[in-house]
Amino acid sequence: MPDILHKVGIKSSSLNDVYRALTAVEGLSAWWTNNTQGESKVGGVLQFRFAAGGFDMKVLELHPAERVLWQVVDGPEEWIGTKINFNLKQEGDWTIVLFKHQGWKEPVEFMHHCGTKWGIFLLSLKSLIETGKGASWPNEIKLDRWE
Amino acid sequence: MPDILHKVGIKSSSLNDVYRALTAVEGLSAWWTNNTQGESKVGGVLQFRFAAGGFDMKVLELHPAERVLWQVVDGPEEWIGTKINFNLKQEGDWTIVLFKHQGWKEPVEFMHHCGTKWGIFLLSLKSLIETGKGASWPNEIKLDRWE
Repeated sequence: MPDILHKVGIKSSSLNDVYRALTAVEGLSAWWTNNTQGESKVGGVLQFRFAAGGFDMKVLELHPAERVLWQVVDGPEEWIGTKINFNLKQEGDWTIVLFKHQGWKEPVEFMHHCGTKWGIFLLSLKSLIETGKGASWPNEIKLDRWE
Repeated sequence: MPDILHKVGIKSSSLNDVYRALTAVEGLSAWWTNNTQGESKVGGVLQFRFAAGGFDMKVLELHPAERVLWQVVDGPEEWIGTKINFNLKQEGDWTIVLFKHQGWKEPVEFMHHCGTKWGIFLLSLKSLIETGKGASWPNEIKLDRWE
């Protein structure tokens, strides 16, 4: 099954800062969507909302400064059951985020779209940590007339 | 084998403008790398260079306003033999670029890196067409200390 893969290096000497941005509702609101709610604890569910709907993610794993794993429990049909992994490591002055959205059944056009959008939002995460300002929805780069 | 997939919508009513940016050396220089040389014709080879090396692409297919297909003939080991597809279509005021870099043997960390970098450069292509100004190498967003 095809996966969406990304790697983003963030100029930061603090794995914890990046980890917090991936786990605190306030952090997620600043780089992914400003309409983020829910409980960021193992077994909890996070709700991410955009103009045309959104995703509910069950938090499967939280390893501070190291790894976050979610599973999609509600949202577009193609996303349900897929898993989203963030793995963190420090390389010199850079915090490296290895990202994987795994479990897609088919490489449909929507998967192409989501591959690019994840990149846009991960660059928003990078900007949030490096400059203090992310570009979460509704302020991110738009890719088509439906957004 | 895993692929890198992207979809970028560009506010443009001209498929030809986008096709030209994917085929003319001047266009490629403006959104991918300013060190682009070679012959953009079927059977020709394009050379794309960056700080630490680059890629030679053989042009396999050119369908005006529709499709560009390259195959990597020299570059990093993981890239050799892989194919890069750009498929174009018009949806209202948007030109849609469906991108696929196919033929990776393994989902190595370098593939994560290239997935994000392709996104960054495709957003540079979008900016080039929409604003007249791309961010080709060496002016694109950097993802780690090696760049």
